[in-house]
Amino acid sequence: MVKRSQDIDLKIFKEEICKGNTSFLSQAITLGESTLALHRKQFRDLLTELIPHSGSSIRIGITGTPGAGKSTLIESLGTYLIEKYHKKVAVLAVDPSSELNHGSILGDKTRMELLSRSEDAFIRPSPSKSNLGGVTQNTRESVYLCEAAGYDIILIETVGVGQSEIAVHSMVDFFMILQIVGGGDDLQAIKRGVYEHIDLLVIHKADEDKVNQARSEAANFKKMFALFPAKQSQWNPVAMTCSSKENTGISELWQTIVKYLEQTQNSGYFQKKRTLQNIAWYSELQQEQLKRFLEEHPKLNDGILQINQEVEDEILTPLRASKRLEKLLTSLFSNT
Amino acid sequence: MVKRSQDIDLKIFKEEICKGNTSFLSQAITLGESTLALHRKQFRDLLTELIPHSGSSIRIGITGTPGAGKSTLIESLGTYLIEKYHKKVAVLAVDPSSELNHGSILGDKTRMELLSRSEDAFIRPSPSKSNLGGVTQNTRESVYLCEAAGYDIILIETVGVGQSEIAVHSMVDFFMILQIVGGGDDLQAIKRGVYEHIDLLVIHKADEDKVNQARSEAANFKKMFALFPAKQSQWNPVAMTCSSKENTGISELWQTIVKYLEQTQNSGYFQKKRTLQNIAWYSELQQEQLKRFLEEHPKLNDGILQINQEVEDEILTPLRASKRLEKLLTSLFSNT
Repeated sequence: MVKRSQDIDLKIFKEEICKGNTSFLSQAITLGESTLALHRKQFRDLLTELIPHSGSSIRIGITGTPGAGKSTLIESLGTYLIEKYHKKVAVLAVDPSSELNHGSILGDKTRMELLSRSEDAFIRPSPSKSNLGGVTQNTRESVYLCEAAGYDIILIETVGVGQSEIAVHSMVDFFMILQIVGGGDDLQAIKRGVYEHIDLLVIHKADEDKVNQARSEAANFKKMFALFPAKQSQWNPVAMTCSSKENTGISELWQTIVKYLEQTQNSGYFQKKRTLQNIAWYSELQQEQLKRFLEEHPKLNDGILQINQEVEDEILTPLRASKRLEKLLTSLFSNT
Repeated sequence: MVKRSQDIDLKIFKEEICKGNTSFLSQAITLGESTLALHRKQFRDLLTELIPHSGSSIRIGITGTPGAGKSTLIESLGTYLIEKYHKKVAVLAVDPSSELNHGSILGDKTRMELLSRSEDAFIRPSPSKSNLGGVTQNTRESVYLCEAAGYDIILIETVGVGQSEIAVHSMVDFFMILQIVGGGDDLQAIKRGVYEHIDLLVIHKADEDKVNQARSEAANFKKMFALFPAKQSQWNPVAMTCSSKENTGISELWQTIVKYLEQTQNSGYFQKKRTLQNIAWYSELQQEQLKRFLEEHPKLNDGILQINQEVEDEILTPLRASKRLEKLLTSLFSNT
């Protein structure tokens, strides 16, 4: 296992991942999830090597409350893309709560039985960290690794809660939300500003006995969407019905995505969005790096610990502590 | 107006605020809300002078959804404390959305007609910033100024949304939530983890025709609270009914607060909580200061801007940009 070794052979890793070797791909992702500084450094070096080989997939985000049938939809859509279009499909997850609920998202591969058996699919559960920032970063990095390994479609699943939805939105080209037919909180979700983030709303579990209700719900959403102002993408979010169980609506769903891609690639929005996502990613890296630099600076660090202690002991008020820190910074770093 | 002057006379400001001069108090708060570095510095100096004169008030947080009657309750409670106990009452607000909805919280002083006419009351609307961090910091600082000006009771109002509730919780001794009688989202609020943060739940607008329903709702909450684990304060949240319109329940509400204060002052929890709040405050100040230091360092700043530009122009990938920043930091600041 790579986790225990002191060093990895960058060249071999790069070659094997580019060949589509899933064992090396998995090990590399695990390396990236490590909290050890050495592992992170090795991983960053590997990623830097692989990024030029990435970027050619379509990244699709899928959200929805628990029970909306995200895994079933991913199973149907993934299988469809592999069988019909000979795509290679990777499935990742952003679920900051996975440590708490024992990784319910993608934790159970049996929920994607067909897909997990396919040679053209790669399924990776959410890293078990409780920190959303860490999970987001790991997933974003995994996207590049999967792309370098030749996956054409990256499906990223997340639970329907605000922060992680926004995180997934920041790393995908296309974002869809699943709502169960007859689910009461539809309007609520739209109000919450989800509309801003979605390109497609799927009324899911529109099985035969519920298909009429589902269609009427989808029609209501279409009417509602028409009332909202146009988005920067110039794409009007679509509302449609789908039953993964009965395999209806899957090809229509894919056609919608294809249409979105054509439209936004022609308008230049697709590339523009990716550039903006890169800028946002770098901005996160930068914050992290500056923070780490300050934390690792020995003299500054000692001084900060000392001040913190005096605040805790109530020797210093917060404002006086703040003045002390100012002096410390000035004494350590000349401003010229 | 102090906002336009280049300098303020610290000594006069300090003296006048300590005398309870509300005009100087208002000007000082305005100074603190300024985004100009000079104003912030002057304000910090003033605050440092005033903090030794602060700390002797009781800080009470009040939350609840719009329409729960927060302003009416504050009007009733404030008037009661002034008339019956000759207290001086200051009212502040944390409402990060106030810029959007034109400062609905406390914006309209006519909603607190009696209180706003009283010489022993000071009412200050939420600063109109959209950034919660900024609003929180301004409000926390205003607390100290009001205390130095002799206010015994500080009432801090906030809207019932997660983040600003937590912000207010971090600066008060006692926290209460208002729920309108018959309001449907009671259980929802409790589920959202509000229980953890409240010391008192008021079923509000329990007017004569609704008093029985209100009492039964309060009883249900009491039962629910009994199921939750004990809090660090060893205080079991209380559920009670109140009608500000009919002025019933106000003295019981105050007696509950008095009982809380006695219990937590005796156990030492009261002081311990304030110390922890100070530590948290300093931790915010420290983050802000380190960030500002980095932003203001000319060479570092130039280098960062250059790197950012190259990321935007897609000359650098985020990871390569990150490496460049690392080199820049190492070259500017020797680690010894």
